[in-house]
Amino acid sequence: MLTNDQLSQWDRDSFLHPSTHLAQHARGEVQGRIIIGGEGCYITDRDGSRLLDAFAGLYCVNVGYGRTEIADAIAEQARELAYYHAYMGHGTEASVTLSKMVMDRAPDHMSKVYFGQGGSDANETNVKLVWYYNNIRGLPRKKKIISRWRAYHGSGLMSGSLTGLNLFHRKFDLPLDMVRHTTSPYYYRRDTREMSEPLFSAQCAADLEQLIDTEGADTIAAFIAEPMLGTGGIVPPPEGYWEAITPILEKHDILLIADEVITGFGRLGHMFASPAYGLTPDIMTIAKGLTSAYAPLSGSIVSEKVWKVLEQGTDENGPIGHGWTYSAHPIGAAAGVANLKLIDSLGLVENAATVGPYLTAQMQAALGDHAHVGDIRGEGMLTAVELIADRDSRTYFDPDRKITPQIVAAMGRRGVIARAMPQGDIIGFAPPLCLTREEADTVITATTEAVAEVLG
Amino acid sequence: MLTNDQLSQWDRDSFLHPSTHLAQHARGEVQGRIIIGGEGCYITDRDGSRLLDAFAGLYCVNVGYGRTEIADAIAEQARELAYYHAYMGHGTEASVTLSKMVMDRAPDHMSKVYFGQGGSDANETNVKLVWYYNNIRGLPRKKKIISRWRAYHGSGLMSGSLTGLNLFHRKFDLPLDMVRHTTSPYYYRRDTREMSEPLFSAQCAADLEQLIDTEGADTIAAFIAEPMLGTGGIVPPPEGYWEAITPILEKHDILLIADEVITGFGRLGHMFASPAYGLTPDIMTIAKGLTSAYAPLSGSIVSEKVWKVLEQGTDENGPIGHGWTYSAHPIGAAAGVANLKLIDSLGLVENAATVGPYLTAQMQAALGDHAHVGDIRGEGMLTAVELIADRDSRTYFDPDRKITPQIVAAMGRRGVIARAMPQGDIIGFAPPLCLTREEADTVITATTEAVAEVLG
Ligand SMILES: Cc1ncc(COP(=O)(O)O)c(C=O)c1O
Ligand SMILES: Cc1ncc(COP(=O)(O)O)c(C=O)c1O
Repeated sequence: MLTNDQLSQWDRDSFLHPSTHLAQHARGEVQGRIIIGGEGCYITDRDGSRLLDAFAGLYCVNVGYGRTEIADAIAEQARELAYYHAYMGHGTEASVTLSKMVMDRAPDHMSKVYFGQGGSDANETNVKLVWYYNNIRGLPRKKKIISRWRAYHGSGLMSGSLTGLNLFHRKFDLPLDMVRHTTSPYYYRRDTREMSEPLFSAQCAADLEQLIDTEGADTIAAFIAEPMLGTGGIVPPPEGYWEAITPILEKHDILLIADEVITGFGRLGHMFASPAYGLTPDIMTIAKGLTSAYAPLSGSIVSEKVWKVLEQGTDENGPIGHGWTYSAHPIGAAAGVANLKLIDSLGLVENAATVGPYLTAQMQAALGDHAHVGDIRGEGMLTAVELIADRDSRTYFDPDRKITPQIVAAMGRRGVIARAMPQGDIIGFAPPLCLTREEADTVITATTEAVAEVLG
Repeated sequence: MLTNDQLSQWDRDSFLHPSTHLAQHARGEVQGRIIIGGEGCYITDRDGSRLLDAFAGLYCVNVGYGRTEIADAIAEQARELAYYHAYMGHGTEASVTLSKMVMDRAPDHMSKVYFGQGGSDANETNVKLVWYYNNIRGLPRKKKIISRWRAYHGSGLMSGSLTGLNLFHRKFDLPLDMVRHTTSPYYYRRDTREMSEPLFSAQCAADLEQLIDTEGADTIAAFIAEPMLGTGGIVPPPEGYWEAITPILEKHDILLIADEVITGFGRLGHMFASPAYGLTPDIMTIAKGLTSAYAPLSGSIVSEKVWKVLEQGTDENGPIGHGWTYSAHPIGAAAGVANLKLIDSLGLVENAATVGPYLTAQMQAALGDHAHVGDIRGEGMLTAVELIADRDSRTYFDPDRKITPQIVAAMGRRGVIARAMPQGDIIGFAPPLCLTREEADTVITATTEAVAEVLG
């Protein structure tokens, strides 16, 4: 058996961690953890601590940890056939079955699903498909992609460009050329306090329309958006937002890519968020909840309208020059099939629709009046507490004070994991969809105590 | 139990396959296969056919199919902990152990490994790291990446730009701006037959030097290359090639990214190809053989020189803004640990170094004199047969005749899978590293018969 010292030495010597302060980690100053197990909403680390994971990994373990149904499906697939590729029409029972199950759940106008590995590469696929689409349609200039400030669509070169957060652009020369960002639909951070939600939404729409006019609609291929903003702050769309945005896209022949990596498969209390917000996307990005992270798998779902052009493209040009070695990987596909069955049989979409709002409401009851709590918001099983130096003037804390990281650390000492969102002082909650009311209460108590510890 | 008709209906209705003629597939004209199992070098499809897979999936199933040691490791990890993230210094025993095992096998000057999911996203990470590296060093203009025609580095927007094959550029508006391509080290396709290998290598080096001069060395960040060309034609580097190239890179402060996605973990009869060719890369890309494809996992190995700058970068700027949700996924890590042990215990690197050359040599003996065989080449367990309309004038077949796809189909009817490489009439062989001499003979017989069937 390996000692903890041994492991942490190897870790510091050999492992380049994502989203980590590399120098501090190498010096042993980062409080990393070796996780060894999990069950339901709880994980266990190598020191024997048991923690309630109120962020479900990275909002991805939708069904919770330790589900033997999925583990068994993975084990069986690994024994029967761990790998074969999906190029040139090949497949496995698991990947074909999962494609059918995904399309049964997707809105009716959607046609086919391409499987990748993670959300970033799925958005990469989407941009490739959009460019191909307009080339086949004879619109070679119509290629720019509009995203929104505070969006998160991944951290590759293109997906990180679509992302609208400083941390992912700075020092990486992003965004790339073909990407534009428009106003973030973040009502709490509106310019003037007096502006109503519908007016704010109208302003977002006007800003978008103006951007399109400036660039020229004939140069804009697609608009990409999370139905509800995730990593940028966990922000439900303001009233009237989508109703104002979608007609503009239609008018200018701009495709809508709905990035449902977080919202897909139940998180907002619906199987998908798009229909709930009245969206009819041309492409949908899925990942996370597709397998509840038990194995890497993502997807790009294309509408019949897009598919028809892809067909035309291959009739004119031969096989499509796009594919990953691990597209539709059998282990991911087997995990996906078992996971989607479990989401249904455990009624997790319904649980997200009831316990999620309970979590948000109780959080509001517990912390809503705190002098340094500016906003508590959420939708389904996704909740945010936004902290503020001064409520009335909406003055934010100096980021260097690291208020939220301190609070999240204080919650950790109380056995609850939440996330300090990367831009702004925002505590994020995205528990497994199986969260109970008692567990929600535990999360709220830890949050309240930690806020009191750090901010009084 | 699902019927085959049912499955193939679902497949055509719902599944967007990679690298497939989409319209033909939807019309039921593509001869896809549902694969259900495998053992050693053989796979089995749903119709009961058993095929010798002389391409190891997509040159990735290095240990062969049906290895219970890896399946058991995956099953155990899935039961204990299918997922936790690796952000902010987190990890699992499997991911930390694998990082140590990879670094033990990598050349001594390499320092740390970042884990992704596939080869394309690993190259994406590499470009991000290279740009970050030169920003931290205060060289913001030094950003272009030089690749080679006929390279394959993936099919994302950046990785597909690094790729130097038409199929992956056409209709996708690639390559992106920051990428340049230089001469392909493809001796057989040299301009003048008289040119010797060393002279051809010198010309490749002169072409590179001239490209650097034209662009300005202060604008070039890195040179990316497969130590031996893979998808572009399975072409060993010509004599003197690497000796001529590497001093140019050093002279101009240009990083070397060695893409070892195919060559890593034994395929060429060495654990890695770089040291065998005398290369000291700054970054190495790994995938495929890292897990033998039993689960998606890739890696970017950085040298100590690069690592030091990354450390400085995070000391100056805080946590690095790069990460995938599935970085260092526990299932992939567990598969990797079991896989690397198996490569050692089965002596697969040694087997590749003996049976591979046997395959190439026997192929030469069987087909070398055929009027339409222009070149038979290989290294370790990687072999190519290049077909030609006329040997003396080196006139190629018209691609529309689809000579190689026909031969590969004829081999399939004989129970052997080879690959029609995407550009040129080249039959590719990359069997599992456990191939026996008897299996090599089976491959050669099927190839010889299929060539005779199609070309006489
Ligand atoms: C909305 C959204 N899109 C894309 C991604 C990128 O997914 P991945 O980290 O799997 O690449 C994420 C990840 O958090 C996300 O939240
Ligand atoms: C040398 C090389 N690099 C990168 C890749 C891309 O890997 P993936 O298909 O896993 O994205 C490949 C795939 O064949 C490859 O051969």
